[in-house]
Amino acid sequence: MKFPKPQNILIQDISPLVEGGKYPIKRIPGDSVTIRASIFRHSHEEIQGQVCYRTQGSTKWQKQSLTFLGNDEWEGSFLVSELGLYQYFIQAQTVEPKDKWQKSKVYEVRVDPVYAQYSAWYEIFPRSQGSNPNQSATWDDCTRRLQDIKKMGFDVLYLTPIHPIGQTNKKGKNNSLDAQIDEPGCPYAIGFGEGGHYELEPTLGGWESFRDYMKKAQEMGFTMALDVALNASPDHPHVKEHPEWFFHEADGTIKCAENPPKKYEDVYPYDYFNENWQELWQDIHDMIVHWVKEGFKIFRIDNPHTKPFQFWEWLIPEVKSKHPDVVFLAEAFTRPKLMYKLAALGFDQSYSYFTWREQKGEIEEYLTELTQSAANQCMRANFFPTTPDILPEHLKNAPASMFKMRLMLAASLSSVYGMLAGYELVENEPHPKKEEYWNSEKYQFKVRDWNKTGNIIPFVTKLNDIRKDNPALHQYNNLKFHHSDNDNIIVYSKSYKNNHILFIVNLDGYQSQSGWVQLDSNAFGLASSYEVEDLLDGQMYKWEGNHNFVILDPNKTPGHVFKIISHT
Amino acid sequence: MKFPKPQNILIQDISPLVEGGKYPIKRIPGDSVTIRASIFRHSHEEIQGQVCYRTQGSTKWQKQSLTFLGNDEWEGSFLVSELGLYQYFIQAQTVEPKDKWQKSKVYEVRVDPVYAQYSAWYEIFPRSQGSNPNQSATWDDCTRRLQDIKKMGFDVLYLTPIHPIGQTNKKGKNNSLDAQIDEPGCPYAIGFGEGGHYELEPTLGGWESFRDYMKKAQEMGFTMALDVALNASPDHPHVKEHPEWFFHEADGTIKCAENPPKKYEDVYPYDYFNENWQELWQDIHDMIVHWVKEGFKIFRIDNPHTKPFQFWEWLIPEVKSKHPDVVFLAEAFTRPKLMYKLAALGFDQSYSYFTWREQKGEIEEYLTELTQSAANQCMRANFFPTTPDILPEHLKNAPASMFKMRLMLAASLSSVYGMLAGYELVENEPHPKKEEYWNSEKYQFKVRDWNKTGNIIPFVTKLNDIRKDNPALHQYNNLKFHHSDNDNIIVYSKSYKNNHILFIVNLDGYQSQSGWVQLDSNAFGLASSYEVEDLLDGQMYKWEGNHNFVILDPNKTPGHVFKIISHT
Repeated sequence: MKFPKPQNILIQDISPLVEGGKYPIKRIPGDSVTIRASIFRHSHEEIQGQVCYRTQGSTKWQKQSLTFLGNDEWEGSFLVSELGLYQYFIQAQTVEPKDKWQKSKVYEVRVDPVYAQYSAWYEIFPRSQGSNPNQSATWDDCTRRLQDIKKMGFDVLYLTPIHPIGQTNKKGKNNSLDAQIDEPGCPYAIGFGEGGHYELEPTLGGWESFRDYMKKAQEMGFTMALDVALNASPDHPHVKEHPEWFFHEADGTIKCAENPPKKYEDVYPYDYFNENWQELWQDIHDMIVHWVKEGFKIFRIDNPHTKPFQFWEWLIPEVKSKHPDVVFLAEAFTRPKLMYKLAALGFDQSYSYFTWREQKGEIEEYLTELTQSAANQCMRANFFPTTPDILPEHLKNAPASMFKMRLMLAASLSSVYGMLAGYELVENEPHPKKEEYWNSEKYQFKVRDWNKTGNIIPFVTKLNDIRKDNPALHQYNNLKFHHSDNDNIIVYSKSYKNNHILFIVNLDGYQSQSGWVQLDSNAFGLASSYEVEDLLDGQMYKWEGNHNFVILDPNKTPGHVFKIISHT
Repeated sequence: MKFPKPQNILIQDISPLVEGGKYPIKRIPGDSVTIRASIFRHSHEEIQGQVCYRTQGSTKWQKQSLTFLGNDEWEGSFLVSELGLYQYFIQAQTVEPKDKWQKSKVYEVRVDPVYAQYSAWYEIFPRSQGSNPNQSATWDDCTRRLQDIKKMGFDVLYLTPIHPIGQTNKKGKNNSLDAQIDEPGCPYAIGFGEGGHYELEPTLGGWESFRDYMKKAQEMGFTMALDVALNASPDHPHVKEHPEWFFHEADGTIKCAENPPKKYEDVYPYDYFNENWQELWQDIHDMIVHWVKEGFKIFRIDNPHTKPFQFWEWLIPEVKSKHPDVVFLAEAFTRPKLMYKLAALGFDQSYSYFTWREQKGEIEEYLTELTQSAANQCMRANFFPTTPDILPEHLKNAPASMFKMRLMLAASLSSVYGMLAGYELVENEPHPKKEEYWNSEKYQFKVRDWNKTGNIIPFVTKLNDIRKDNPALHQYNNLKFHHSDNDNIIVYSKSYKNNHILFIVNLDGYQSQSGWVQLDSNAFGLASSYEVEDLLDGQMYKWEGNHNFVILDPNKTPGHVFKIISHT
């Protein structure tokens, strides 16, 4: 007969956790981590508890008392200030007589840099930053563009792949299979000759001008993000040096990539479980670190859901253990459970379905899931109104009013959002058969008049300014919806301490909409009458109680961004 | 560098589980166990899955295919027929090419006897079953009572403690501290002279008449339940033989029991972590098995929440491993988390707060928690309108109509309920200062006229007959509430296959109440007009659609028990 070891106090139902504590919850410096647990023992003795925490590697545990919430539930908090992993556990003992402390398992909190949670991204194809439609722009062209991008208020500058572009089976304009010899190919088909993922596409200019560009951008305050597409063009040096790293057809030839229904004839995917898989994994890790050393802090990973989960579970903590300021964005346009899994495994951010959520009900439902469910402990959704792959139906041939409205939603519903270069010029020409841009810069050189008439640069700039000025918009999990009686008007607020921002957006980008807005009573601790200031145009309004009337004309504004002014 | 073992398919979020699978979920023979899981891998390959199950100890796994539900969720079922533990796991593989099966952890299902889920209990003090108020009734008196109890339709016969009663500090009438020499003491103060928990109180008659009683009762179909109060009177042989098994005051004397605010001067609690704790635990185990061998299948455990959780975690599976038809009821009138924990650890049933839930809203909320939350996988709440310790405020000096109403709620809201002997006689005299009976049989001999005028025996009998005839009332988790526009009228239904029973109860036991009843649309797959039969009085009603009007006079009936008659 084997008896259990006496343990009188149970500590259970600890929250928040990611997958029962298998993976860390995520925070940023300055956050307070609040932990709840059920703590109880048989009988009636009074108990007390503490949360004990430390940075990983520190030998000394800090301690904070737990507060009793009722129903055998307790809560404790601690502040995190350093990047990297924190550890914590809960301990409890009886008060009289004082037992030995009984302890929970040790759990982890990962503290990421602020830009993991709050940042405004601007996405460019470096080769499209110039003025000659027949040749690639250079790093020097890119450098000349920095000031304009900075002025618009973006703080992350995201570059699509910058590596040598394969020529075999290269794609022509609009993804055609019969590219002309002088077409540049798609930068997602990586590798040519001696150059793979560690190298630069030569037509962009050499290492010197690249490093000069990176230096200037960082000096201006940009956090640099790089696209990582883990595929090889048929011309990638890996194909000759490591043919065993790829999948093979029955006839021995190497298989090309698929992301059904799409097929990419110009790229080969890696086989992560090939006989020399450890070499492949290490090579990818070293490639990331190589670009970290060149100044990139963020890696936007192309299609991570088509690679094994174990690879990410190893790679991301491995990189972050030495470089805790590095952030990974998952381009995982896939099923929800895969997206959440990638976040649990370590991805800081994820692309999302925002691009296709148009109706009020579906936006409210999706954002509630993203920001208010358990998923908010590990996944931060980065909202892009368009991407190089996606021009959604509602923006095809759409007017500036629609572009403003979708950007306003992206920039306010999430604390982290991004805009593809050209969006500010209301680029709206669709591929006739696909949900994509016509003449996409994925497949060709492109030049633009960055001051084109009809651009929405002042609106973009204003949105980013408002985001910077209001701490409520730096938080991801503080979104709250309110009611309006018009299904075309969506109402939501974000609050942080005394900063309360109320968004009222006309989801009909074409016609005026009006209706009654009903604020959740006491949402902002309001007096019976108060002032709201529209941060978009500086207008002040006197509001009374929780019901107020709005009229929104999309030709004037996509909506109100009200700062609630409290009078004491 | 340590790489993980490749595993391509994730099997997670398995449900239902108790505490993440630490403890088995509970079922009865004939139940279908339906398991859900999220199953997915990276990329797009089609997968398939199975649930594999067996009885514990069997070497062969049975297999059932999983069905795809959408959103990467799968479901599979299997039938359980034998008492004891089943094991199961989920396995999945890619369809093309067929991978090795990837398997989840192994989880457990505990199959309990039917009476763990469905039974009607009658609780007696054996010494109160006779006709002489000055002496204890005997086992022969108890035998004479069996037929009446059986006629009322009860199937579990629950005996309060039957062991020798301590005399030191014994309690007198109404719990007085100055008992007269000829008062019998409280049967919860166990142990006198040579006799402890293994022995019979001699005034009830000897082993021969006891065994004759047990035999007759079982022949009549009763499942026998015994009260187990794990305390010793100061006269218990353990006090002399094992003084180290108890708690001690600073002066070396043994501490008496407390259940704040109550103090029990006539009983000593055991110290489960005393130096010879293994001997104590084994002795209690052997005592339970001793009574199993005498014919008891159910043990109602007094105050289990004042004993360490580890003790139950060891004891209950230990007893059930050899005696899978044994059932434990926790008399845990304590905080919710402790009640649920005891259920997770192994208790088949628990007392509950039903006794104090009076208003419609609080009944709906509590029953939804009990029957529709995750707790329903391990805890079955046994509803008693009163207990020897509790005469709730609403039944003090209350009329028969109130007694009927509360019994009807108990017998229909839960599939397992119990009634204290004397309830059928509308015993309603309260202790002037406590929520207890006056002249409680806990502290004195008691005789009753079992055919007393005003008794509600026909109503009790009818309720039990209705329960027997309708399989919907044998299920615990199938409760569904419906709306009525009168807060005094509570409406709920239970369905099993084609058996639909609708309860409409007037919670005001004093005055007529009327109102509109609104059935959940399509709750029973109803035609636009249909018939309902009141099983209490046989009356048929024609009902139309989902809205129907009722008038309930408590002097005639506490409510309707409608069987929905479907017309094809």
